[in-house]
Amino acid sequence: MAKPNKNAGPEARLPKGFRDIEAAELRATNAMLETIRAVYERYGFEPLETPSIEYTDALGKFLPDQDRPNEGVFSFTDEDDQWLSLRYDLTAPLARYVAQNFQTLPKPFRRYATGLVYRNEKPGPGRFRQFTQFDADTVGAESIAADAEICMLAADTLEALGIARGDYVVKVNNRKVLDGMIQSVGVDPADDAKRLAVLRSLDKLDKFDRNDIALLLGPGRKDQSGDFTKGAGLATEQIDALLAYVSQPPPDDDLGASARRVSGFEPTQLYIDGLAELGAISDLVKAAGYNSDRIRIDYSVVRGLEYYTGPVFEAELTFQVKDEDGNAVRFGSVGGGGRYDGLVERFLGQKVPATGFSIGVSRLQAALAVLKKDAAKADASGPVVVLVMDKGELPTYQKLTQQLRAAGIRAEMYLGSSGMKAQMKYADKRGAPCVVIQGSDERAKGEVTIKDLVEGAKAAAAIADNKEWKAARPAQVACAEADLVATVREIVARHRKE
Amino acid sequence: MAKPNKNAGPEARLPKGFRDIEAAELRATNAMLETIRAVYERYGFEPLETPSIEYTDALGKFLPDQDRPNEGVFSFTDEDDQWLSLRYDLTAPLARYVAQNFQTLPKPFRRYATGLVYRNEKPGPGRFRQFTQFDADTVGAESIAADAEICMLAADTLEALGIARGDYVVKVNNRKVLDGMIQSVGVDPADDAKRLAVLRSLDKLDKFDRNDIALLLGPGRKDQSGDFTKGAGLATEQIDALLAYVSQPPPDDDLGASARRVSGFEPTQLYIDGLAELGAISDLVKAAGYNSDRIRIDYSVVRGLEYYTGPVFEAELTFQVKDEDGNAVRFGSVGGGGRYDGLVERFLGQKVPATGFSIGVSRLQAALAVLKKDAAKADASGPVVVLVMDKGELPTYQKLTQQLRAAGIRAEMYLGSSGMKAQMKYADKRGAPCVVIQGSDERAKGEVTIKDLVEGAKAAAAIADNKEWKAARPAQVACAEADLVATVREIVARHRKE
Repeated sequence: MAKPNKNAGPEARLPKGFRDIEAAELRATNAMLETIRAVYERYGFEPLETPSIEYTDALGKFLPDQDRPNEGVFSFTDEDDQWLSLRYDLTAPLARYVAQNFQTLPKPFRRYATGLVYRNEKPGPGRFRQFTQFDADTVGAESIAADAEICMLAADTLEALGIARGDYVVKVNNRKVLDGMIQSVGVDPADDAKRLAVLRSLDKLDKFDRNDIALLLGPGRKDQSGDFTKGAGLATEQIDALLAYVSQPPPDDDLGASARRVSGFEPTQLYIDGLAELGAISDLVKAAGYNSDRIRIDYSVVRGLEYYTGPVFEAELTFQVKDEDGNAVRFGSVGGGGRYDGLVERFLGQKVPATGFSIGVSRLQAALAVLKKDAAKADASGPVVVLVMDKGELPTYQKLTQQLRAAGIRAEMYLGSSGMKAQMKYADKRGAPCVVIQGSDERAKGEVTIKDLVEGAKAAAAIADNKEWKAARPAQVACAEADLVATVREIVARHRKE
Repeated sequence: MAKPNKNAGPEARLPKGFRDIEAAELRATNAMLETIRAVYERYGFEPLETPSIEYTDALGKFLPDQDRPNEGVFSFTDEDDQWLSLRYDLTAPLARYVAQNFQTLPKPFRRYATGLVYRNEKPGPGRFRQFTQFDADTVGAESIAADAEICMLAADTLEALGIARGDYVVKVNNRKVLDGMIQSVGVDPADDAKRLAVLRSLDKLDKFDRNDIALLLGPGRKDQSGDFTKGAGLATEQIDALLAYVSQPPPDDDLGASARRVSGFEPTQLYIDGLAELGAISDLVKAAGYNSDRIRIDYSVVRGLEYYTGPVFEAELTFQVKDEDGNAVRFGSVGGGGRYDGLVERFLGQKVPATGFSIGVSRLQAALAVLKKDAAKADASGPVVVLVMDKGELPTYQKLTQQLRAAGIRAEMYLGSSGMKAQMKYADKRGAPCVVIQGSDERAKGEVTIKDLVEGAKAAAAIADNKEWKAARPAQVACAEADLVATVREIVARHRKE
């Protein structure tokens, strides 16, 4: 894309895994963030902004993809040789903030935050090293009602964005249930590495097929590029039991019974506790009118981050889109979260239970674009362009432009150095509703000519003959300078409505 | 602030030079950003978001404070050992973006952007290593009208934020004038290091007194901590000429004549060209109705960044505030910018002139707070809190909470595990307008009690006797569950109006 550099200067290029976001997407995203913000505020969460950079030890190491350089985070040292990192999520910094301000915060502390996070991971299609998250968290609440509320918050947010009931589902599972299951098939509860390897393999259920997951749970798996991922080392019967468990259908109301029926193992206490929590969430959301078409138990939900300790959530969009190969697939996850009772404890040495939810902003924006719900795009019409017919008259054109702006009309004077034809082309490219022209004739009469570009384009399509065009001068009106604002306002209003 | 850590885990602390931004400031800042955005849109600028991380060579080295570690930027290497840096402004990344997309962009390209930037510099009071800028730039416009427009944009933005005419001024100078002056006193035009040292010294005119500037221009200066800053090495008569020049009063309309009168040196062509540009800006802004009470020439404006090549701007708030020592001082600069005709050329090897302006967001927010113009703070009242009187009834309390939210009322159920008294204290701390209470008596009757905390506080202040208080139960109403929303809405509306 960049021109060859005659200057031997640097090449204009983006680092791998980063992207520029241009006007249409940015406008739509900002409109979306405002809607999310309104729902989070309604739920009583308060905004907070923590910095992008934290001490590396304060963030901790909870990312799933620890094989990558720097273990998934961008890190560097400060002038005292202490390690700093760019935050990889908004949750670890929240834990640092709460621990640092524990004495003065209301408890529970409910905060929302939106901001960029950074992952030093392998980039891929739609997978970037910098992205925006939008989080809500309740810290200092042991009550399972806090988890139930997060699920309702997620459902309400998606509906506020125009996603129809039935086009999304908030899926709930519990790490205690998963860990209990893993213990039940015979994995040593003390073998944390093995437990995490199993969880990470199961977390890939929505990306890989069953045979690949079985390889990840067992001896390991080689991908198409030849890269080998070490397996969790389970035996076949353990793998079969786990895969049968996570693929069972959503439970009846009696969670314990329906789970036991499928998996046929002796449940541990951890597993029973986890099921009881799922049951309590189910009761709370049902009482508030959220049925299983919006929020439901799903035994396959794991979530990648290590710090979860109880309920885990995933907001999934269920409508179909075409994937890169043209196959119809579910749109998939746009956010997730869970309970992380140990994060603040790391700092304080005292239990501070917490739960939260995080939206992947650009992923959700992509979904809204598919659903054509991003109305913000539609009214992003360009500015009125005041053409420069005579460079000696710049102050006059500038004055006309300021008059339009002062009246609240989006307007600009052409600031390049090209002629009339290029200026008209520029106005087209900017999506200008009209241009304002004042040549010497008009100036002598104290008039301006306003050319309606939308009408003009329609007229041009209808008129074949160039001579006829010139004679008719369609979509062009002259008016007194004093009527400039009123005339332009009318044209702009006409096209906004269309 | 943090509690002693019994866990031997990490200490909860912020890295030096970083800060958390809490709800009240964040709400006020967001409201301010929306106002700025509306003005920039009105001027026809389009939003763009570039990443926080760029290749180090793409950003270039233009910061004034190059003695610090990493020369003022945070840098690290990627997996291919290429150097990456956190952006230190929004302008260098814009140049990279324009160079990379030059073929397809409208020319001139007008964009605005807001985002965090990072400086690896010595932190101080009000001086952070991460801060937000809000920029507008026109790229590909040689016309001095583009610079004049930036000045009007700055003035309009400050007025849109409620800063009265007379409380701000947009000061304009020109690097060509400054460089021409420096040449005129005998500095070799090819000695770039000396030229920059002189500019940097002059740039400190608003921070240091005249004698310190003279030391910086001459032999060098030792600060209170004993740190020595190398001087530019000018002779006394050169220093005197420069200081006389930059301190001359704003010029009459005949810029050249008034400048020559004071400084008494033989002007170079560069100097004459610079003055002509200042004159053209002056004509353009006057024609559009912006007089010297809003935009005026000021020969002392330099701006710190190296990449400026022509006009430079500084938006200054002129009202008085108390400094740390209690002295009345002007609030000072809240933004600045200028023309940087060489930044895109670095990449493309072809001239792409550009000019722009950047607002220091938290600095401007601090100014608005001083002026008490940040209305956003006022209506940030807390959520209605539904108390939990009986843990077995959580689903009922949750349902009541969701009813309030569904009606658009900011509400939350208490999610902690404490008793009634602590819950009331929590509601006070959150700034709740009222709490909703349903004990077993009320539940049996299908009622709820709503306690107006604002009225309650007033009544408590008026009633001295505790017994009298208990008998009167002021500011408390019972209503049927079905009337919950209507009753709460009335209380919330009443207190919002106050």
